[in-house]
Amino acid sequence: MEMENGGISSQKWSFKGNELLVKSSEITIRGILNKLMDNLDPKDSRPTIPLGNGDPSAFPCFRTAPEAEKAISDALYSAKFNGYPSTVGILPARKAIAEHLSHDLQYKLSPDDVYLTSGCTQSIEVILTVLARPNANILLPRPGYPYYEARAIFSDVEFRYFDLLPEKNWEVDLDAVISLADENTVGMVIINPGNPCGNVYKYEHLKKVAETAKKLGILVIADEVYYHLAFGSNPFVPMGVFGSIAPVITVGSISKRWIVPGWRLGWLVTNDPNGILKKHGVVDSIVGFLNISSDPATFIQGAITQIFEQTNEDFFLKIINILRETADACYNKIKEIPCFTCPSKPEGAMYAMVRLDLSLLEDIEDDLDFCLKLVKEESVIVIPGLAVGIKNWLRITFAVEPSSLDDGMSRIKAFCQRHAKKP
Amino acid sequence: MEMENGGISSQKWSFKGNELLVKSSEITIRGILNKLMDNLDPKDSRPTIPLGNGDPSAFPCFRTAPEAEKAISDALYSAKFNGYPSTVGILPARKAIAEHLSHDLQYKLSPDDVYLTSGCTQSIEVILTVLARPNANILLPRPGYPYYEARAIFSDVEFRYFDLLPEKNWEVDLDAVISLADENTVGMVIINPGNPCGNVYKYEHLKKVAETAKKLGILVIADEVYYHLAFGSNPFVPMGVFGSIAPVITVGSISKRWIVPGWRLGWLVTNDPNGILKKHGVVDSIVGFLNISSDPATFIQGAITQIFEQTNEDFFLKIINILRETADACYNKIKEIPCFTCPSKPEGAMYAMVRLDLSLLEDIEDDLDFCLKLVKEESVIVIPGLAVGIKNWLRITFAVEPSSLDDGMSRIKAFCQRHAKKP
Repeated sequence: MEMENGGISSQKWSFKGNELLVKSSEITIRGILNKLMDNLDPKDSRPTIPLGNGDPSAFPCFRTAPEAEKAISDALYSAKFNGYPSTVGILPARKAIAEHLSHDLQYKLSPDDVYLTSGCTQSIEVILTVLARPNANILLPRPGYPYYEARAIFSDVEFRYFDLLPEKNWEVDLDAVISLADENTVGMVIINPGNPCGNVYKYEHLKKVAETAKKLGILVIADEVYYHLAFGSNPFVPMGVFGSIAPVITVGSISKRWIVPGWRLGWLVTNDPNGILKKHGVVDSIVGFLNISSDPATFIQGAITQIFEQTNEDFFLKIINILRETADACYNKIKEIPCFTCPSKPEGAMYAMVRLDLSLLEDIEDDLDFCLKLVKEESVIVIPGLAVGIKNWLRITFAVEPSSLDDGMSRIKAFCQRHAKKP
Repeated sequence: MEMENGGISSQKWSFKGNELLVKSSEITIRGILNKLMDNLDPKDSRPTIPLGNGDPSAFPCFRTAPEAEKAISDALYSAKFNGYPSTVGILPARKAIAEHLSHDLQYKLSPDDVYLTSGCTQSIEVILTVLARPNANILLPRPGYPYYEARAIFSDVEFRYFDLLPEKNWEVDLDAVISLADENTVGMVIINPGNPCGNVYKYEHLKKVAETAKKLGILVIADEVYYHLAFGSNPFVPMGVFGSIAPVITVGSISKRWIVPGWRLGWLVTNDPNGILKKHGVVDSIVGFLNISSDPATFIQGAITQIFEQTNEDFFLKIINILRETADACYNKIKEIPCFTCPSKPEGAMYAMVRLDLSLLEDIEDDLDFCLKLVKEESVIVIPGLAVGIKNWLRITFAVEPSSLDDGMSRIKAFCQRHAKKP
């Protein structure tokens, strides 16, 4: 008989957990990463090569700008930012972000268009919660970023996938978008620069996305957390440029461009010169959400003006150059591996998507099996396509120290050779 | 005819806001504060005296400990904490908090009992979300802290009020607790040191609370955000001491004790030596929640060990002495105002609850009317009892610079004299 506190087991407790939380959280990248890490061989003395996560902050060459660190320190020691912030973010920070993002637009954002969030993660949570209503559905890219699915499951918003087309440099299949949408479709998500595809969309394609959204009467959620991390032929164009065609909600942060995901400073921005979001109650709901939620640390908010003003352009150039170099190195190594195909060289963000030809491998069941065996045998972490919506592909992060990338890709090549079908 | 983007107004948009967010957020302290601030008279050249919010961080005498600022700066410049944290919090921080809180317990907390949150705000969000299920209800103190109601509304958890008894130093009416609970009651909330009552519960009373919870089969949510801010005859006793009687979830943060609410570093702790929360799926749900949510900034998590180890005891003594002094000054001023009654001198936290005798006032309709006219005529902010659950009371914060408190209380006295009923 089980004893609790010396009492008898007949003690009843009426509370229990919320299974929806467990279900929603099973499909995140972090969930898959934990599973892979559990498969590491403790006897392997080589360093683990993390080609899974888009977080190169631990590598010396990706250390953030000294001006950014100083801005945080200055805000901290000013003692002006120890108190609660306004729930939507402190005004100087909203103003700084509005100005910063307006540089790339043909109109001026107002501070009232900007809401500070605890990283892009919270921005996505805000918008999925705001759009939730009975029977609502949202259109998501495949492959994509599974946190959207996790929040949609939690908010009981149905999601429907449109494909990104590998043969067209991962452009959106707009015909699919049109055929998926119905009167309950509230929005579509576009991630640019692309996670997981490492692509950068052209102006003309983004314009077509906006026109499609207008035709369907839905809003565009533009995930631009990798904004300005573009190092190929296409420049980064913010979706907000087309905010007068269809309302755009942009989510972003300093996490990737400044290589500080742990600072948890993000934003949600309404790019909506026609005021449609306000008219439809979306703005009031965003404010409502933030009124009942926690905030990014006030002194980090207080540092943002100085971070924008003082970060030296050389820092951005350095990061872009490293990413271009590592993307090239990664792509060239991929070409040496017979069972791998990368449809196009990555030109943005931090990832390459690789198609796995299982027919050339001997004892690998699928992408997850590939990743689990790879981590066990080679201590290299890559994400199975399954986790980002397309089975039997892999997502490889090239945003690591160049020597680590070289080591990691060589181990992957050796792994593939060892598991190759013998002729 | 209204034009949108040069098109015709027949353009239909299928998205709209989530009204539940607006409804949930209407009842927070921040919501009431915004309403009061709107009533400030811009022609009044005197400084506004903020006796509304429990955030004295802007006052020089309440500046946080220099050791705490240095700990943050050290963590920042170490560049070890720029990346994503583990979703439950980084291990050294969980370990430090477990040790820190175990000092006041008769058993040792494990790091696995500790979850890092973005301030106590997020801890409350976690537990209300975790406990939500169809028909669930939760028992809340009246007066209390309205964020619990806001999150309960959002999570569709019914709430029922038990009274705190002013004549018994704001003890819980345990008979009411017993008569309110039914088979769908999942938990009860206890805030100690008390917000809004400024009381500190005795060991024996807390033990009775735990025994009542056990009898009812519910968990105790112990809000200890004001932990150790006790300056009267009762020492602070953490509810976790009684975790073997009934499971206790403690929510807390460094916000109040270190006077840094803007740093957004809090915790949720399971005080449950018998493992009942794990068995009932509550622990898995907490982890699930944190897997799909944002986190406190990693370098702030990274600083916590040093904050605990190096903050000089003199800092805490200084803060306690100021709070004792301002509580006394506030209480003495209250006694000079005929239409005010304070049932007992505040001995903890940052607040005094004051009963308003409207029969002695000439043209004041109720507590809200009192606060609106006070802010307009005297630029002094206090919270109407309405906002914390009891009409025609006031919540006054004494945690401000002593000279500001003196100024504020004198203005309140003048206001009451001016509005007193003529004999």
